[in-house]
Amino acid sequence: MVEPVVRAALLEDLGRAGDITTDAIIGACHPERNAVIPSEVEGQRKSISAEIVARKPGRVAGLGVAELAFTLLDPGFQFERLRPDGSDVEARETVARLNGSARTLLSAERTALNFLCRLSGVATATRALVRAVEGTGAAIACTRKTTPGLRSLEKYAVRVGGGRNHRFGLDDAVLIKDNHIVAAGSVAEAIERVRRAVGHLVKIEIEVDTLDQLREVLSIGGVDAVLLDNMTEAQLREAVKLAGERVVLEASGSVNLESVISSGSITHSAPALDFGLDFLS
Amino acid sequence: MVEPVVRAALLEDLGRAGDITTDAIIGACHPERNAVIPSEVEGQRKSISAEIVARKPGRVAGLGVAELAFTLLDPGFQFERLRPDGSDVEARETVARLNGSARTLLSAERTALNFLCRLSGVATATRALVRAVEGTGAAIACTRKTTPGLRSLEKYAVRVGGGRNHRFGLDDAVLIKDNHIVAAGSVAEAIERVRRAVGHLVKIEIEVDTLDQLREVLSIGGVDAVLLDNMTEAQLREAVKLAGERVVLEASGSVNLESVISSGSITHSAPALDFGLDFLS
Amino acid sequence: MVEPVVRAALLEDLGRAGDITTDAIIGACHPERNAVIPSEVEGQRKSISAEIVARKPGRVAGLGVAELAFTLLDPGFQFERLRPDGSDVEARETVARLNGSARTLLSAERTALNFLCRLSGVATATRALVRAVEGTGAAIACTRKTTPGLRSLEKYAVRVGGGRNHRFGLDDAVLIKDNHIVAAGSVAEAIERVRRAVGHLVKIEIEVDTLDQLREVLSIGGVDAVLLDNMTEAQLREAVKLAGERVVLEASGSVNLESVISSGSITHSAPALDFGLDFLS
Amino acid sequence: MVEPVVRAALLEDLGRAGDITTDAIIGACHPERNAVIPSEVEGQRKSISAEIVARKPGRVAGLGVAELAFTLLDPGFQFERLRPDGSDVEARETVARLNGSARTLLSAERTALNFLCRLSGVATATRALVRAVEGTGAAIACTRKTTPGLRSLEKYAVRVGGGRNHRFGLDDAVLIKDNHIVAAGSVAEAIERVRRAVGHLVKIEIEVDTLDQLREVLSIGGVDAVLLDNMTEAQLREAVKLAGERVVLEASGSVNLESVISSGSITHSAPALDFGLDFLS
Amino acid sequence: MVEPVVRAALLEDLGRAGDITTDAIIGACHPERNAVIPSEVEGQRKSISAEIVARKPGRVAGLGVAELAFTLLDPGFQFERLRPDGSDVEARETVARLNGSARTLLSAERTALNFLCRLSGVATATRALVRAVEGTGAAIACTRKTTPGLRSLEKYAVRVGGGRNHRFGLDDAVLIKDNHIVAAGSVAEAIERVRRAVGHLVKIEIEVDTLDQLREVLSIGGVDAVLLDNMTEAQLREAVKLAGERVVLEASGSVNLESVISSGSITHSAPALDFGLDFLS
Amino acid sequence: MVEPVVRAALLEDLGRAGDITTDAIIGACHPERNAVIPSEVEGQRKSISAEIVARKPGRVAGLGVAELAFTLLDPGFQFERLRPDGSDVEARETVARLNGSARTLLSAERTALNFLCRLSGVATATRALVRAVEGTGAAIACTRKTTPGLRSLEKYAVRVGGGRNHRFGLDDAVLIKDNHIVAAGSVAEAIERVRRAVGHLVKIEIEVDTLDQLREVLSIGGVDAVLLDNMTEAQLREAVKLAGERVVLEASGSVNLESVISSGSITHSAPALDFGLDFLS
Repeated sequence: MVEPVVRAALLEDLGRAGDITTDAIIGACHPERNAVIPSEVEGQRKSISAEIVARKPGRVAGLGVAELAFTLLDPGFQFERLRPDGSDVEARETVARLNGSARTLLSAERTALNFLCRLSGVATATRALVRAVEGTGAAIACTRKTTPGLRSLEKYAVRVGGGRNHRFGLDDAVLIKDNHIVAAGSVAEAIERVRRAVGHLVKIEIEVDTLDQLREVLSIGGVDAVLLDNMTEAQLREAVKLAGERVVLEASGSVNLESVISSGSITHSAPALDFGLDFLS
Repeated sequence: MVEPVVRAALLEDLGRAGDITTDAIIGACHPERNAVIPSEVEGQRKSISAEIVARKPGRVAGLGVAELAFTLLDPGFQFERLRPDGSDVEARETVARLNGSARTLLSAERTALNFLCRLSGVATATRALVRAVEGTGAAIACTRKTTPGLRSLEKYAVRVGGGRNHRFGLDDAVLIKDNHIVAAGSVAEAIERVRRAVGHLVKIEIEVDTLDQLREVLSIGGVDAVLLDNMTEAQLREAVKLAGERVVLEASGSVNLESVISSGSITHSAPALDFGLDFLS
Repeated sequence: MVEPVVRAALLEDLGRAGDITTDAIIGACHPERNAVIPSEVEGQRKSISAEIVARKPGRVAGLGVAELAFTLLDPGFQFERLRPDGSDVEARETVARLNGSARTLLSAERTALNFLCRLSGVATATRALVRAVEGTGAAIACTRKTTPGLRSLEKYAVRVGGGRNHRFGLDDAVLIKDNHIVAAGSVAEAIERVRRAVGHLVKIEIEVDTLDQLREVLSIGGVDAVLLDNMTEAQLREAVKLAGERVVLEASGSVNLESVISSGSITHSAPALDFGLDFLS
Repeated sequence: MVEPVVRAALLEDLGRAGDITTDAIIGACHPERNAVIPSEVEGQRKSISAEIVARKPGRVAGLGVAELAFTLLDPGFQFERLRPDGSDVEARETVARLNGSARTLLSAERTALNFLCRLSGVATATRALVRAVEGTGAAIACTRKTTPGLRSLEKYAVRVGGGRNHRFGLDDAVLIKDNHIVAAGSVAEAIERVRRAVGHLVKIEIEVDTLDQLREVLSIGGVDAVLLDNMTEAQLREAVKLAGERVVLEASGSVNLESVISSGSITHSAPALDFGLDFLS
Repeated sequence: MVEPVVRAALLEDLGRAGDITTDAIIGACHPERNAVIPSEVEGQRKSISAEIVARKPGRVAGLGVAELAFTLLDPGFQFERLRPDGSDVEARETVARLNGSARTLLSAERTALNFLCRLSGVATATRALVRAVEGTGAAIACTRKTTPGLRSLEKYAVRVGGGRNHRFGLDDAVLIKDNHIVAAGSVAEAIERVRRAVGHLVKIEIEVDTLDQLREVLSIGGVDAVLLDNMTEAQLREAVKLAGERVVLEASGSVNLESVISSGSITHSAPALDFGLDFLS
Repeated sequence: MVEPVVRAALLEDLGRAGDITTDAIIGACHPERNAVIPSEVEGQRKSISAEIVARKPGRVAGLGVAELAFTLLDPGFQFERLRPDGSDVEARETVARLNGSARTLLSAERTALNFLCRLSGVATATRALVRAVEGTGAAIACTRKTTPGLRSLEKYAVRVGGGRNHRFGLDDAVLIKDNHIVAAGSVAEAIERVRRAVGHLVKIEIEVDTLDQLREVLSIGGVDAVLLDNMTEAQLREAVKLAGERVVLEASGSVNLESVISSGSITHSAPALDFGLDFLS
């Protein structure tokens, strides 16, 4: 499922004319024809080595995606992972060793690093939040505030960072929000409509703003989880007491809870984790 | 060119089953059939209004993309821009007013905001850098460190932020790096090979690490721009003196120069600018 | 989400050369040029009327899909639904009235009916099963035994027939089968691994063959539903007693239960419901 | 040509998150990270064996398609055909032996069987009709009433069942129907327009309802085949006498004829032939 | 069916960054932001007029395709055809009048003309051949030597030029060549295999090099057409006598015959017919 | 980047039913089943040899593309290049030796040759122009008048023929034409707007009709190249003198100049270079 995304990223970078710098310099030149004809070049198959090195400390995610950027251009390209996804690395630590044609290395480098840096950035941001709630019993979950086109990969990076995945889309779980309740007329009617419509393998979550709404939801029943929106820490503690084991509680944006905390920023605003590609001579 | 990207993002969110929450609640329910059949619902065409409001100050970019998320689902959806792309907005400022079916509003909201927040984040980060070099004669340019699949949109956001675009890909300009020079044998040979290979409408840039390399490049000629990598501010000042009007100088990561400064972080690590969608009752 | 499927079906039928019969007959012929040039023909815009008529009694599903087959070829085509999806129709009942160019009618007719007949066949087969369990408290659910490429549409037809949807794919709910248990080493370990891995909005179902396995699952807890495979009616009754309200029970292939009964045949072997298109003169 | 259809079916089943059950159970779990990271798992490469077994008697079609479902996920997967396409198998007969990773087996199983069961169902239904007309000199042909997206595969299954293929689409042969004749003004004019328009390698068939129309067509000439619609067996016999060797006669829905009999039901309503996948321990 | 081809051609020309010249010049410039933001520009909606004018005499084909290039960019664009496809025009004759935004005109012009010039070139080359055989009873047909990706359009242009279409691909008619006969063992066996395999709506043609082979084919029967390869005019005349009305004869590369003459050059080597776009002020 | 184009061309030729002639003749026939089942055939793997032979003298371009047509159908197909791209061949010279299954050879032959003949035709036409200007200091460049869908390949063929590439699209260089100048109000304003909008790695060319316009452009500065449209040879000589080293001069349609000459005809009207495929027995 990842392949089309990586292939599209390579094409986005190669454009119509391909890597014209590398073609011109590594391709052989037939002076009498005044033309460079890349595909005839013997030299381009000479293999060179390189390493992917972390420039900053963080958690690695996306080595398999980075590998694809090279192997889609050249199936024989060697990509050896020294530190697997999920490893915590220091600055200057080597995470993979590469061997293949200079042409492939130069043409796929940027695409590979764009994926690796972004996904490791998401994993690193998630790890930081996970550590911040360590010992509280709370878990960190991502939201649907992901980069268009990269949702599955970013959800993967969140798992690598120790977080949990919330919905992958509008279709794999129900989340009843304010406007749904307004449209239905009441909380009870909204829950009832949903339960009548969805299959028995779909979970139902409802968003509430107040403890009174939470009490109403709990008395009605029929939901699997409740999203507590914008509550103070005191309210959240009270909510945990009210809910007991009956439903999963989820809070947006706060910590220190025995619940799930969902965060959009770990996907939409995580700074990329810097990796570089160093050629070995 | 933007449409396929937005369409893919909508499908990524709607998945196989669509917006099951909204279908269940806004779709009519035929109790005797125990089924919700979305397409038969009269109610779903009732229109409601909403606003897109900035939650933080910043520069707006991507309103046209956000609009597409709604109009691709419903061509009759009304999306009125109150502040155009390129506007600097305050927190709580309304940038667009929306009117259309509740179903469309609820189903496209997240996709629209995901684009708007990311692109405005890029524009805002760019604007900050542009202001930092104001008066120095330097310009800010982006790199190829962009989000896979979103390069054209992020390049657009950089322009909206007052920055300039560097290469869109490996094929629209030449950039000779260390490894190309090693492969060619010398700076002179690398430039010569490139000039023989590329057309007369392609610009040529070369990366140098030292002032000696810059002098060598200037004496050889034949390049349009030089990328000064990792130089101190003193070296950069000297470089500006050496180059004069002959080539465009570009520095990575430093400021205070009469040159172009290229920055990867404005695309790969810009935090999203927060926008929300408020329903009007 | 339906549009690409219908568009692909039209192209599958039109092939490279299009509807050559209709082009030849309705296109104007320039005798002096010995050629038919379809796009120049005035006559082709003359509109005619037709009706879609049920040839057999059943439940209608897919009128919106059938409509798309015509409107994708000609956005101005008129398609008036007389009986909405979910209606139970008799043989010879008219379900839609059509008006548009003869060319569009003739070229899209087969594609439109192929969808309508298949989806109505699924809805009709589902309705029959739903009626068979009426009063038992059991619900009818479909499986993943669907036609490749048409899963979402067939799942929709099941809902129209009064059934409920099981998983849409391998990714929206967990179903632990024999081989998963073997791989994990025990039921308890399988459930534990799953609970550690999936998010809090994903439901977990486990398949059991015996009442002992059911008891084990119930004592372990942590699952939302249990699939009872190949049990006798007596075993099923006992299972209902054992489970109480704690989990949803699902049986494959049997009836007369207060549970969910999943059936592959309503999607993979439902005979198409016959509809025809009659031209009105 | 089959590959994109199988790939799309796999993606339809794997969705955004993939086979979450198998990932959770067969993937290794890093307890200290509270995360499952599938791509790091050594265990997932351990190979297991399985068999595809017929649950009902019938004719096998689609083993190559089923094989693709496994090999597209894992090119090294072993799929040994024991009974080739076109074989008549008994219930409980093994048609293929499989060997590969448990992950691939579990994730591709349903998609592979969905194709195999459907295509074998079409071949089996066709075989039954072919046997019913054995000795009559009639052949069985399919129509364009096929499953959207699967036409080429279902046409193949019809051939495997001993049937013949009618048109693959609107573009590879002419079929003049009632409404074409009305539009042209007369049978003669319709045939004339078609003959002027289409190339010399396109066959022309015309549909008639009465023996008088058949006589008219035969006296005009210029067609390769005549489709006899809704005729009694007596009329059909008379038609055979009238036509002699001059044209191919085709009847819809009747048997016992020296002609071609076209049947939509062998594709649109053939029940799937049940196959299962049994793991070998 | 034409739309995806035209859309792909537009994207091939617009690339990642779009029409940067027109964006820069017609887009409004916000001096204080040092940026051009195309989507905010009022001026871009100002409409201008232009004409498509033939630069050389020839037969027009492809105006509908050219129109699509403009209307896909801007659905409101006005494209009035003054001379329909199939018209014979003189140099400097206007074939269409255009009205729309300067941006659309400038961005789509090249793509529109690329299609129009090529297809008109094919029609013009076909017309020349058709005229050369006028009065001989021979028809001109194209082959499968077409431009990859444009086969349907070039086949259309051949019809507009007065020619007839041969096979559209390997799948819509049988053509038995030398190597097929070698593989089958004999002409009779090749024809027999084909007749057993293909449906009754598929025509069968066989290629022969000598009159003896033609006699053999005629004595075997069962084919609809014979392709006479590389025969002299005398041999061709003899062939016409031998075949009589029994089969269609087709010759490659020769004229003056009562048969069909197939020509690859009308598609693979037709020079484009020159059209230009003149702006009206 | 070439693979999708070749794959699409193969599918365009194979259609829905594939190579029915080869399937019927090389596929094994099960007489008792009255059906041909291609995938069961042992014989189809028997390999045969063939050669690609030039029928006319010219320059070879596109052997790699031709090879792909065979290897996409059968990855094990052997394609040995005897003369590389860029070779000048005589009539009857063999350029490649092929070995593989008869099925692959017969099914991919036409697609492979369609690419090879067209691209070699472009290279041959380019070579002729390059030779015509030999010694003048002028270079030959192609334009955007290319075949829709084949631009990158035709640009490659131009390079193989010794020519240089002009813009690949509207987005990789600026070309200011008449209408842009009109829209901007003046030459100076047009250049100014462009320079403000585009990045520092984009070249700027402007089209002029008169020597006065050239003088104006030179006095303004800021452009990299000037396109001299429709000038006499005397004017062109004067232009060369005026411009000196300051800008690159480009002429459309004339020769004998120390400048770049752009030609649309080398791509849009180059006759295909004839190659054939001869089977070796």
